[in-house]
Amino acid sequence: MRIALLGGTGDIGEGLALRFAHDTDHEVLIGSRDPEKARDAVADYEAALEDRGVDADVKGFANEMAADRADVVVLSVPPYYAGDTVEAVADRLDSDTILVTPAVGMKGDEDGMHYHPPGAGSVTELVAQRAPDEVPVVGAFHNLAAGKLADLEVAFDLDTLVVADDADAKRTVLDLSNEIEGLRALDAGPLANAAEVESVTPLVINIAKYNDELHDVGVKWQ
Amino acid sequence: MRIALLGGTGDIGEGLALRFAHDTDHEVLIGSRDPEKARDAVADYEAALEDRGVDADVKGFANEMAADRADVVVLSVPPYYAGDTVEAVADRLDSDTILVTPAVGMKGDEDGMHYHPPGAGSVTELVAQRAPDEVPVVGAFHNLAAGKLADLEVAFDLDTLVVADDADAKRTVLDLSNEIEGLRALDAGPLANAAEVESVTPLVINIAKYNDELHDVGVKWQ
Repeated sequence: MRIALLGGTGDIGEGLALRFAHDTDHEVLIGSRDPEKARDAVADYEAALEDRGVDADVKGFANEMAADRADVVVLSVPPYYAGDTVEAVADRLDSDTILVTPAVGMKGDEDGMHYHPPGAGSVTELVAQRAPDEVPVVGAFHNLAAGKLADLEVAFDLDTLVVADDADAKRTVLDLSNEIEGLRALDAGPLANAAEVESVTPLVINIAKYNDELHDVGVKWQ
Repeated sequence: MRIALLGGTGDIGEGLALRFAHDTDHEVLIGSRDPEKARDAVADYEAALEDRGVDADVKGFANEMAADRADVVVLSVPPYYAGDTVEAVADRLDSDTILVTPAVGMKGDEDGMHYHPPGAGSVTELVAQRAPDEVPVVGAFHNLAAGKLADLEVAFDLDTLVVADDADAKRTVLDLSNEIEGLRALDAGPLANAAEVESVTPLVINIAKYNDELHDVGVKWQ
């Protein structure tokens, strides 16, 4: 399968790119608004993978081109770019492309981070509204510890929650997520349940802020 | 220390009563609007504790009496009773009493449970508004797996998040929580961060609903 990480030069994009390339046989495409930036990131990722003895198939493109070539498109962009990025790549998507969104709306103050969803109820539902009707949208990869993910030396044992209305697309993303070593994907229901999933992200940041022994926190449901 | 569980005949009250009585030397007081109901629950709890060879000090009272005698008062009542229960026991509380609230506002529909906070922003902040000014309020015990807690045969490894503005009261509740075997208490910041903590409760219910292998779910931050 071809997995495109749009905004794949950012924190969560880097982590997912490295883990998919390291742990699976899927082809990883890095997308960026600036294709040069995407190719620079690819060079870094390939070096990190080579250090671990992995000769991975990673390529860099402009977001549109990456989306065009992929079976699964992950919108690993900041939340305020999520809607615009969907529209920028919309004509490259079709009913065979699964659009995955990990972005979360947050607002910080002196106390910590607070969940701040858009009017659609969640970023996941906003993406679903802005995506072409025939494109299945899946929410996933929201509450991961980005630092652990991006450091291939670190083994982790974390969960990711998956929400979607399209059962086949949800199954594909659940299976794909489970291929990353140490990651367990759980079903959190339809898109309407996305807000409860997204709101865990400010919480993990608050937990890291207030507990010295936990600086890059993810979650395990048990 | 004397710990009163108001509404201590309900799910989370039962679990906390049993675990505090089983794992610690603190005195446990069960409160109910109906003192007879409290005493019936105590008989059940004592039987469960005796089965495990523990001769525990548990007593049943009307909520007001339980609050009056306790150092720590846990409002383990449904969220829509939380404010009224605080007012009912307010004149039994003082600056030496710590008021702990585990309640969460939720609304269910066909998709699952959704976080539904009161106008105060969270049930925790509502309790703080309704409590006498001098009484320190602490949010804790929100996201526990109630069934596991209430079954002394079950060993668990879960976290509880603690929010408070009063540093001493927070420390006391963090320490008290850590005395329950298998429970780790983490600091999630001031009361203003309570909404992000509370919103995990509908999520654990959704996870249980959509994943056959997880029917009574709590959380571990790692």
